[in-house]
Formats: sequence, C-alpha cells, structure tokens
Amino acid sequence: MTPTPTGTVDLDPRPSGSQTPRRGKGTLTYVLTAVLPALAALGLLVMLGTSTDSARTPPGSGPLDHSVQLFAAIAVVILAARLFGRLARSVGQPPVVGEIFAGLCLGPSVLGALLPGASAWLFPTEVRPVLQGLADLGLIALMFVVGQETKQTSFRGQGGAAVTIAHAGIAGPFLGGALLASLLYRDWAGPQASPVVFAMFLGSALSITAFPVLARILVERNMFRTPLGRLSMLCAAIADVVAWCLIAAMTAVAGRDTPARAVLTVTLVIVYGVAMTWLVRPWLARVLTALEGRAEIRLLVLLAGLLASSAVTSAIGIHAIFGAFLYGLCCPAGSLTRLTERINSVSGLLLLPFFFVGTGLRTDVWRSGFDASLVGVTALVVAVAMLGKLAGPMLMARSTGLSWPDSASLGVLLNARGLTELVVLNLGLALGLLSERLFVVLVAMALVTTAATAPLLSLLGRLTARQRDGGARRL
Amino acid sequence: MTPTPTGTVDLDPRPSGSQTPRRGKGTLTYVLTAVLPALAALGLLVMLGTSTDSARTPPGSGPLDHSVQLFAAIAVVILAARLFGRLARSVGQPPVVGEIFAGLCLGPSVLGALLPGASAWLFPTEVRPVLQGLADLGLIALMFVVGQETKQTSFRGQGGAAVTIAHAGIAGPFLGGALLASLLYRDWAGPQASPVVFAMFLGSALSITAFPVLARILVERNMFRTPLGRLSMLCAAIADVVAWCLIAAMTAVAGRDTPARAVLTVTLVIVYGVAMTWLVRPWLARVLTALEGRAEIRLLVLLAGLLASSAVTSAIGIHAIFGAFLYGLCCPAGSLTRLTERINSVSGLLLLPFFFVGTGLRTDVWRSGFDASLVGVTALVVAVAMLGKLAGPMLMARSTGLSWPDSASLGVLLNARGLTELVVLNLGLALGLLSERLFVVLVAMALVTTAATAPLLSLLGRLTARQRDGGARRL
Repeated sequence: MTPTPTGTVDLDPRPSGSQTPRRGKGTLTYVLTAVLPALAALGLLVMLGTSTDSARTPPGSGPLDHSVQLFAAIAVVILAARLFGRLARSVGQPPVVGEIFAGLCLGPSVLGALLPGASAWLFPTEVRPVLQGLADLGLIALMFVVGQETKQTSFRGQGGAAVTIAHAGIAGPFLGGALLASLLYRDWAGPQASPVVFAMFLGSALSITAFPVLARILVERNMFRTPLGRLSMLCAAIADVVAWCLIAAMTAVAGRDTPARAVLTVTLVIVYGVAMTWLVRPWLARVLTALEGRAEIRLLVLLAGLLASSAVTSAIGIHAIFGAFLYGLCCPAGSLTRLTERINSVSGLLLLPFFFVGTGLRTDVWRSGFDASLVGVTALVVAVAMLGKLAGPMLMARSTGLSWPDSASLGVLLNARGLTELVVLNLGLALGLLSERLFVVLVAMALVTTAATAPLLSLLGRLTARQRDGGARRL
Repeated sequence: MTPTPTGTVDLDPRPSGSQTPRRGKGTLTYVLTAVLPALAALGLLVMLGTSTDSARTPPGSGPLDHSVQLFAAIAVVILAARLFGRLARSVGQPPVVGEIFAGLCLGPSVLGALLPGASAWLFPTEVRPVLQGLADLGLIALMFVVGQETKQTSFRGQGGAAVTIAHAGIAGPFLGGALLASLLYRDWAGPQASPVVFAMFLGSALSITAFPVLARILVERNMFRTPLGRLSMLCAAIADVVAWCLIAAMTAVAGRDTPARAVLTVTLVIVYGVAMTWLVRPWLARVLTALEGRAEIRLLVLLAGLLASSAVTSAIGIHAIFGAFLYGLCCPAGSLTRLTERINSVSGLLLLPFFFVGTGLRTDVWRSGFDASLVGVTALVVAVAMLGKLAGPMLMARSTGLSWPDSASLGVLLNARGLTELVVLNLGLALGLLSERLFVVLVAMALVTTAATAPLLSLLGRLTARQRDGGARRL
C-alpha cells in the first residue's frame, strides 16, 4: 500500500543555487507559498493589533493554575523518597525506613514546622487529590504484589511449624492490642470507634507483619534462601492472611449503623471471596496464559482486573486494598513473575512515595500535642507491640525445634511492620477509628519496630558468634 | 553479617505427632502462646461488645469515599482507549483517531447524552482532579518524547528542501487561520482573547502537524525509511519547532494585562531557552552518560528534570508543555532511546488515555448548541485547514523536484494533526482564547484532518498505480 515508489523520488540536497534550471520556478513558488502568506499573516496581525487590542475580561484562573506545584511536588516526592531510602540503606536500615522518614519530613511534623510556607506552597489543597490518587494507585499495586508474594511462598514441608508459629505471632500481639485498646479507648480512640471495633483494630494493627519489608530484609542479609528465611516468610504469609481477614471483618463492621448492614457487608465479602477463588482465579489463569507473549494486552488485562477488584471491594464497603490483595492471591503466580516485578519496581519508584508522603502529611506531631503522655503512650505501645510479636513466636519456634538464636531471629523478623502497618493505620484514620494523636503514636511504633529489626538481628548474630567462640575456647 | 549459620537450623517438617519427645512441650507452648491469648482476646472483645457497643458519631465521609469511582474510571479509560485504538487500526486508521473517539464517547457528547447517570457517576467532580493530573503527566511525557523525536530527525542533506517546504507548510495555514480568526472573532472567540492573540492562536493551531502521529503513520505504511518519509518527518519537525515557538510567544502575551508583563514573560522564556541549551544540555549529556547502566537513578534524574523543566515554564507563565518539549530537545538522544521508548509506551498506554478523555469531557457538542452554524463553521475550518496545509507544501515540494504524487503525499502527511492539535486546543481553552463552541469545531477539525490522512494516501497510491498502468498500456 506504499503509494510512493521510492525510486522515483528525486530530492535536491542543495536547494538554493546549484540546480539552476529549476531555480527560478522554485524561488517563485517559495515566494508565493511561503513568503507572501507569512507577510500577509504578519500584516493581518499588525492590523488587528492596532484596532482594539485588549482582552475582553481580566485573566481568570484556568484549570492549569496549579501545574507548577503539581510538577514540583511530584519531583520533590520521588527524589526525597529515593534519597532517604539510600541514606537508610547506607546506615544498614531497609530503604522503607528512610522512605517513611522522607514522608514525615515533607509533612507538617518537620518541613511544615520549619518552613510553613514551603510545605503549604508545595502541597496546596488543589494538588493533594492528585497526590492522594497516585498514593491510592501505589497502594493497590503494593497489595497486589504482596498477594502475589504471599501466594508464591512455598510450604515445602514447613507448613505445620509455620502455622503454629504464625498463630502465636498473631494471638499474642492481638491480645496485647486489645488490652491496650481497652486502656486507651476513652482518650485516644477516633470518633467512629466503638470499643469492640477499636479493640479489633488495635489488635490487628499490632499483629501485622510487613511482608514486603521482611522479604527485602532477608534478601539484603542473604537469608532469603535459608530455612530460617523461608520459615519466617511462611509465618509472615500465614499471619498476614489471617490479619487481613481480621481487618476486613473489622472494616465490614466499622461504621455500619445496624447489625443487619454489617451482616450484609460480611456476606458480600464472603461471596466475593468465593467468586474470586472459584470463578475468577481459573479464568484468569486461562486468559493470562493465553495472552503469553502479548505483553501490552496482558498488562492491560492485569491492571484493569486489579482496578476492578479494588473498586468492587471498595463498593462492598471494605477498603480497596482487600480487593487488590485478593486479586494478587488469585492471579497465576508463575507466568506473571516478571510483570509483577516490573509493576513492583515502577510503583515503588513512582507511586509508593506518594503513599509515604500522604502518611507524613497526615502525621502532625505538633498539632496532636507533643507532651509527656504522647511519649509515654508511644513507649507503652512499642513495648506491647514488640513483646507480643517477639515473645510468642520465639517460644513457639523454640518448641518446634529451632535453636534459641534462630527462634529469637524469627521473632525479630516478624516484628518488622514497616509499610504494611502504615496501610492499616491510614485505613484506621480514614475510618475514624484512630484519633490524630494515636495515629502519630502508631506511626512511631511502625517506624521503631521496623528500624529495630536490622540492629537486633546483628546483635543476635554477634551473641551467637561470641557463644560459639566461648564454646570453642572452653573445648 | 548473617546471624544464623544455616547449618545449625533444625526444622521439623512434620510438626504434629511424629516427633514424640518434643510433642508435649510443643503443645503446651502452643496452648500458652497461641490458643490462650486468642481466647483471651476473644473474651475481651465479647466483653467490650456487651458493654457499650456503639460508635460515637454516625459514619461520615472519609478520604476514601471516591475510590470506587476512581478505580472504575481509570480502568474504563485505559480499556476504552485501547479498544477504540484497535478498532481504528482495524479500519486502516491510526490508533490515535480511535483514542480521540474514545475520549469523545466517554464525555458529555456521547455517554453523557445517552446515559447521563453513567457519565456523572464515573467522573464525579472529586475524581476529575486525579484524572486531570494523570492527563497532565501524560502530556508532558508526550511532549518530552516529541522533543526527543524532533531532535533525532536527521537532516541528511535534505535540510534546504525541508526548510522551504516547512515554511510553506506554516505560512499558508497560519494565514488561513488568521483570516478565519478575523471572521470568527466576534462570535466564537473565548473571553480572554484579544483579536491579535486570537489570530495568532488560530494561525498556529492550523499550522501544527502531529509529529508523533505522522511518525506512526509512516511506520505503519512502511514509509519511515523512504526519502519521502524522512523528508516529511523533517518538514514536520521544522514546522513544529516554529509553530511551538509561535504558540509559546502567543501564550506569553495572552492574558498579560500590560505590555511590560508580556515583555517580561517573553524575556524569561528566552533566558530559560538559552540556559537550557547552553548550560543544562551539556550538563545533562554528561550526567546521563555517567549514569549509563544504572537504570533506576537515570530514570529518576530524567523524570525529575522533566518535571522541573515543566514546572519552570509553567511558573514563567507559558504552559508546562513547552518546558517538557524543550527538555526533550535538550536531552542527549542516542543514549536515551530505549528509556524514551519505554516512557512513551507506558505513558501512551496508561497516561495519555486520560488526556483524550479530558479533551472528551470538555467537548460538549450539545451544550455548545448543535446547529447549522456549528456544522457550517466546522466545514469552513476543515476546508481552510486542509487547503492551507496541503496546497502550499505540495506546490513547494513539487518545485524542489518531487513528483506530483509524492508532493501531494507530503502535503497529506503534514495535514495529520491528531494529538498535537488537541494539546494546542486544550491550551487555548484553558487560556480562555476559545469559546466552547469553537473548541468543539476545532476538535472535529483535528479528527477529520487526521482521519483523512490514511484514505487520501491510499487514494494517491491508487491514482499513481493507475497512471503507471495507463502509461504502460500506451507503450
């Protein structure tokens, strides 16, 4: 269908002067088609300009007014997240600790307190919905990846031990959270929290493990392929599924004014879960296998399904993250590994920073009152969270046959809450279950428990080494 | 630093029953660490539930209220764009024609007219800023890619011919647009338009060529590597740089109430352009070459620079797209080719659809009054646009030595306006230079001139073939 046989084209590489036979005609055409119209247009403009050159109304605010802040904010957020992530890594911390810090620094707690003008200029109200939208997209991408990683965790004969350890890793912190809740309810709960829902929320919030952070810590410490690494991944996977089910149940109940509506929501959640598992999962496996090799369409199907599943759970009345997590569990794991990795890296680089910053913007240490009670409650919450998550799994792991140092390491690993905790906390704040003060406390707890993981692991490593040396010397 | 020598780990693959010596202790630990806390937590929840189980205030509207629509809208937009793009391709049109159609169909002109509820539900006011933000990001990604493609267009000795043809391809349509402007100013100009600015705007809007669309048409018709293909790319590149300069000048002048402010803006634009060309360009080349092989950092530097450059031009007072285009011109072309391609494909798949839909949402055929004058003016504008862009370059190309069919094909190719025209039109609407009615007219013009390209090229191909057959028979 090529209309121009290229052989017939005779282009002149030296247009002016060298080809004398055609020159006159060429110049004439040029004057007629290019110079004259240009002069005429210029004349017309001058004529129009000298007549009534004034706009009809003063300049108003168009839809493009905030693009300076929008682009500047996006650039600052992705660069800050990356920079702080690198800094964290350089001091032996997982990048997520730095990224959470970056979010806090850009929010009212640090930047807002130091330079109120800068924070207000960079994140005006008009720009925030866009940043929030990017954060939401990053969040469902993250939950999809977590679902996929959970699905891929192989049991390899460690199932029984993992289930008991995971159970201990949930029950203890949950009880601790629930006890804390009955203590803190009067002064620290959000406006929407009933005592039961508040207790369920704090219980689940304390039992969560940051599955993606755990995986990255294991990779960075070359523990990913060790039996201990596999076991802790497995425990975290089981514990997380249970914790998310608890949180989904809590979300389904929270804010429903009548028991009938709560029952309806729970029923819909179960119906959706069953439909996804028995209908959508096999269908997805077929479709995505059939699309193998057609990367673009596959990506679109995957993303559209992810968005749809998130929208469905959101419409049912539990948060979009559950739909994304369930979708990640239902997508066939093997064939999507590379696509998931790419989604993960792009989202981690360009979308998740907005989630951290969103959390940071909601964390206002000063407005929520920085006083002794804030510090005291933070210390209490951190102690309960760490004790609950460390002691139970450690004892349980020891009783399934692990050595004491390995059991302790397992407890320390499960104690990293990082990113996932922030997801839960933002949910609690959005549902009105947390007061702003308690949100600040729990963000601090998430940061401390995650930041403690690497030093504690190193400490355990040194203790083990000394013990072994001591043992060797004694021999 | 691995704290757990993996050799010492002794995991029990059969946790229950088989290892009798440890069973009793294991079960006891399990009851103590997992079962008892779980029961205690349950008891606590029941206790709390029977006391005062009611939320403090009725459920309010949290920040997550619109996530259903947000996710649904995003899924619908990217799927619709892809689907219509495929349909367009299946009838021999470039995908962009289908994507523009998809935008129009989701807007008030089609979906809004057929199912007002669906359109209002899918795109509520709360979700639009996010969609607009995604569209803005897609737009600057597009302009960056256009800048890169423009930069990569090699002159290869066709420079002189291309300059004269490009000049003819700008002057004619610009004059036509300016004449149209003086005709349409009274009834069709927007509230912010002075006669000169309106004439400059319509003139530039009619002279623009859709560089990316042109490139894709050439690739699809196997004309990309032919001399005619190269020449048309080159003409389009030159014409586009000139047209964007005109539009930037127009934007700098539009809406500034005093000449002094207009002069200031123009000065700043020139300073910025010079700084980018002489300072940032060599620096970028060094930095991006130094980062070769570190894909993530490179992507971040590239994106941060793109966002910063867009923010700067936006802050100066001309649109962000100019900063993005200039940045694309200034980035070193060779080493970024693959990265640019990836940005292009991701943005085309996941961001640009929101630009098309944004345009569609602003194009309301019914509200702007669908009557004879609308149809008449559309026909007039289409006629002027096509005549201006076809005739001048065709005559000029012929006089530089191309055959008549090749000259006509060149004119037809330059006449495709597609996507780039929509960028200009949205700018005009945002600046208040266009009335809503004229916006509708010009969107229709963009669609018609782009859709006409493929059939006209085929027609020319058939004519050439028949002529050749006739000539062969006569021999």
